[in-house]
Formats: sequence, structure tokens, C-alpha cells
Amino acid sequence: MDSPQLVTLGHGSGGRLTQRLIREVFVKHLSNPALESLGDAAALAPVPGRLAFSTDGFVVSPLFFPGGDIGRLAINGTVNDLAVAGAQPLYLCASFIIEEGFGLESLERIAASMADAAKLAGVSVVTGDTKVVERGHGDGLFVTSAGIGRLREEAPAGAKAVRPGDTVLVSGPIGDHGAVIGALRSGMELQGLESDCGPVAAMVSALYEAGIRPRFMRDPTRGGLATVLAELAEEASVSVRVREADLPVRDSVRSVCDLLGLDPLYLACEGRVVAVVPREQADKALNVMRGAPRGEGSRVIGEVTEPAVGPVVLETRYGGTRLYDILASEQLPRIC
Amino acid sequence: MDSPQLVTLGHGSGGRLTQRLIREVFVKHLSNPALESLGDAAALAPVPGRLAFSTDGFVVSPLFFPGGDIGRLAINGTVNDLAVAGAQPLYLCASFIIEEGFGLESLERIAASMADAAKLAGVSVVTGDTKVVERGHGDGLFVTSAGIGRLREEAPAGAKAVRPGDTVLVSGPIGDHGAVIGALRSGMELQGLESDCGPVAAMVSALYEAGIRPRFMRDPTRGGLATVLAELAEEASVSVRVREADLPVRDSVRSVCDLLGLDPLYLACEGRVVAVVPREQADKALNVMRGAPRGEGSRVIGEVTEPAVGPVVLETRYGGTRLYDILASEQLPRIC
Repeated sequence: MDSPQLVTLGHGSGGRLTQRLIREVFVKHLSNPALESLGDAAALAPVPGRLAFSTDGFVVSPLFFPGGDIGRLAINGTVNDLAVAGAQPLYLCASFIIEEGFGLESLERIAASMADAAKLAGVSVVTGDTKVVERGHGDGLFVTSAGIGRLREEAPAGAKAVRPGDTVLVSGPIGDHGAVIGALRSGMELQGLESDCGPVAAMVSALYEAGIRPRFMRDPTRGGLATVLAELAEEASVSVRVREADLPVRDSVRSVCDLLGLDPLYLACEGRVVAVVPREQADKALNVMRGAPRGEGSRVIGEVTEPAVGPVVLETRYGGTRLYDILASEQLPRIC
Repeated sequence: MDSPQLVTLGHGSGGRLTQRLIREVFVKHLSNPALESLGDAAALAPVPGRLAFSTDGFVVSPLFFPGGDIGRLAINGTVNDLAVAGAQPLYLCASFIIEEGFGLESLERIAASMADAAKLAGVSVVTGDTKVVERGHGDGLFVTSAGIGRLREEAPAGAKAVRPGDTVLVSGPIGDHGAVIGALRSGMELQGLESDCGPVAAMVSALYEAGIRPRFMRDPTRGGLATVLAELAEEASVSVRVREADLPVRDSVRSVCDLLGLDPLYLACEGRVVAVVPREQADKALNVMRGAPRGEGSRVIGEVTEPAVGPVVLETRYGGTRLYDILASEQLPRIC
């Protein structure tokens, strides 16, 4: 029986072993002409108009989880950051910091998963980098992605464009990703619950193609829906009123939250969009989102108001209100 | 007396503490309009023509060293990768993976150093990300940068354009960075030796402006000069003949190498260019490089030949030859 092949410090040397690792793992799966040239930089075709540029580091623990893995997260994280900025994601790069002793088979699974995610999102991974740190000085694998997109002329100018009376929509159940990670770490049964890790770029494109002009979009990752809305409220000097009864939260996510003392409004999503649109566009936006890939669970969840008692005011099912602000500290580290 | 302020897991939450960290450390030093908008992606002006895109992860240990630090390395690493691809570096992003307990003061020193390096290289850091891992699961700080450049029409097409008879130049003494890191880790006296960490973009621009058309350029980082030349030889099906007597190596670097059993030809540089030019452009290229910023130590070191006994053939001072191939494994981990 062969012993498992492991990443060694030599794989990070920049020499022969690095070359092999890149060719036999990354290029093998993520193949495209720009990546195959293996230069210090990828040469890309001109991009007309303004650009969007985004980066995210991923340190999720565990590396594999139902619905995804750190590689899929790294692709979708950057794709979604570009999409909600109003850009069409085009080119990604990926940088790997690997702990000595990490399994090459796991690395290859992750590379294959990234290739799959990139294909689904319609982007190419055109360049990358690999470093190796000594055992005990990392934690298996960290992945940092960055991406370039073509910024639409109609892209939102920023939270300040939001007005009282605007409608707030979310593209599906919230907190799935956070609940999966929380449950996994606690050894709980997942009962079919999966991360929502996935691309939202096609849904955002559908909105623009239908003539919808969102005033604000964000993907509610770390800090969750409540933090995104509270940041919006702070920046636009408004409040956001949300109806708990309209908020899509899966029963399984609610169970995980009850058991672990978490709040779904602060739990990370990794494949959802929060969109704020002028009230008169709300019905149309909802229909477009519901008909777009990954948008079938879209809901109108509330509206923007003049500044009120708190940045985010939740109308509970029982007729009361609960106030939310930006997440103060940390409820679940290393969620992404 | 105040106790030192340390990075906590809450600084990676995506909530209030993350916001503060970004504003009070990164935006404070790296300030520019795109960064200050703090969106999920930076909105950038159109870039005419083809783009170059590059990324590098930095795990150097120690984080601070004479002549630089991990932040300065992250800026120059990406600037130089873009420059040697024939691009004018424009926009950078930076992603930080911080170990819980890392000093905020050190982080701020690094951010200030990055700002300084970006200014010197004429680029802006327009977006970023921060993650925090638990104590013992990282190693102080890892920084990953990525960058966008405007690719010149005359940019080298790749190593295959190189021909026997072409001239090989290097822009200054080799191995300074590697020797500094090696010496520091061994507790040796540095005797004034500093890393060569710095930008080569202005020198590359000067070459193009003077009408020089390098057939190949590379910054010899991990794996050093020998690995760059051996990779070139392999890809272009040629050999490279180098004269030891013409190779610029500082005496202090030679001493470190002698004591630690390292070879300067495999030691990383972090602010040098290897350029291959048609023989008839060699004199002019040398003059331009010598007159450009950071190029005063430029030398012609050898020439491209038909395939010979090895990829890189070093003519020693004593009339013999020594063969070099791509670095096989690792001589000094975590050099950058």
C-alpha cells in the first residue's frame, strides 16, 4: 500500500518540487492558456470600461464541509464580492499557504473543487502562488483569492444612495454556512443541512438585464445579515426595518442556533445577496431574483426608514422589536 | 504604563473590531479614495489595452529584517512580478492572515512600511482583507498581495523568444535578501548587509522608453538566479553561460554563504532584474539600467548558447565549469 503523499518544505522552494506541484495539482485542474504560461504575471485581454478589484483570505476550519470546502469558498467569495459591487467577474488568482505535512490528495481535491466552482461562476483562475510553512506554523491550508471584474456603468455608487422607503430583499435562507460550520465543530448531526456556498453573479446579471438598478448590494458573509444592514444604516444615515416573519431561516439552522446560542442574523452566508431597490422596482426585482440561478428562495424582508431607535429594527413574530447593530466581537471564528 | 495592544479573534469577525482595525491601521496609512470607500471591491478607472495580473503570498520569517519587512516585501514582490512581465504596475490589494496575539504596533509598522513602498513604486493599495486565526494556528502574520498592471504592447512573449547569442544582464548584486534572512536566523552579525527589497518598475520602464526590447525578464526571488536561468534554458531549449568573474556578489553575502553552506546563485533577490536582450542592444541596455533607479550595479553576466552540457554553465574564476539546474529542493525555507 502506498503511503499518502504529503506537502514538504521543498514544495515551497520555488524550484523543481514547486514546479511539479503547480503542474500536477493546480494547472492540471484549473487549466487555461493564461495559467499554463506560468509566468510571474498572467497576460489578459483588454477589459473595456471601469474595473472592479477584490481580495479575500480564507482560513475556514474545517477545510471540508457539506456543501463546499476552502477552495470553493475562495472562488465564490471573490466572485460574489465582485458581483455585489455591480461587476461581471472575469479573472481570479489564488495564493496558497500550506502547512508542511498537508496531504497532496486533499490539495488536489481542493484544486478540483476550485476548478468546478470557477466553471460554474464563469471565471478563469489565471495565476497563483504557493508557499509552504513548517509544521505547527500554519493550519493545513489558507487560500487567498483576488479577482478582476468589469464594472457596469450602472453599478451602485455606495450605501449613501439608499433612501428611506427603499425595499430590502434577500436571495434565500440566511445563515446556512455559519450553521454548518458551527454544527460541525460541535460534533452535532447536520440532518441534511449544507453550506449555501455558491456564486451570485448570474443573479446579479439578471437584475441588471431586467432593468433593475439596485441602490446597494452586499453578500452577507462574516457578521451576517445584521452587520451588513447595520453598516448600511450607519453609512447612509438611515435605519432598516426587518420583519422576522418574512426572514427566511431554515428550521435546521434555527435548531443549530438554539443549541449553540447563536443568532442567525449574525451567521455568515456564502451564496446570498442582500439588495436594496427603489420601492417601485421591488416586485419586479423579486420576480427576477426568484427566476435566476440560486434565487428561488428570494424574499422581501423589510424596508429602509428614517433613522429610528437603532440601525436595524427587527419586528418580532410576537409584535415586539429587537435592535441589531454591527457585530461587536466574534460569535464564531474562522467561518470563512 | 499601557500594556501592548494585541490582535484578538474579534478583529477578524467582520464586525465592529474589524472595522476599527481596518480604519485605524490600514486605511490610516494606505489612504486613497478607492480604499476609503471600503466596499467589497474597489472601483477603478479604465485601463487601456491588455492587463497583467499577479499574486504572491508572503510568509517570511522573521517579519522584520534589515532593509525591509513582510509588508514591504509584499508590495515589491507584486510590483516586480508585474514589471518583469512588461507591465506598468497600477493597483494592488493586500490580504492579511494574523495570528491571535500579534502586536497591533507591529501591524501598524508594517502598514506604514507598505504605504511607503507603494508610494515609492507608484502604485495604490486599493482593497484588502483581514482574517485572524487562533494562537498557535498561524505564525504572526502572513500577507498575500495581488496586483493589476497595464501590459505594454512590446511586453516579452515568454521565454521561447530567447535565442542563442542573446546577452544576459542582472541589475545588481545577487543574493542580498537571502543572505540577510539566512544570517538573521543563524544569529550571525550582518555587518551592514541589507535586503535588496525594492521596486524594479522604474528600471524596466527606462528600458522600454530607451527602445530596448528585452526578450525575457524575471526577478530572481525564490530559487535565485540559477533557477531563473535554468527555467529559461528549459523552456527555450537553450543553455545559459555565465561568467563567475562577472557575477556581482557582495563579499558579505559570500561570507554568509561560506559559513552556512549556501550558494549565492540559489539565494533569493527581492529587488533585482535578470534581463535577456538581443546582443546588439546589450551595451545600450546596460547603460540604461545603470542610469535607472536601483540599477547602478548592473552587469552583463553571460550569454545564451545552443544547448550545452547543462541548462546553466558557470565558468568559474579558475577556468573550470560548474553546472546549475533548477533548485531541486529547499535551501532556505520561508525566505519571502
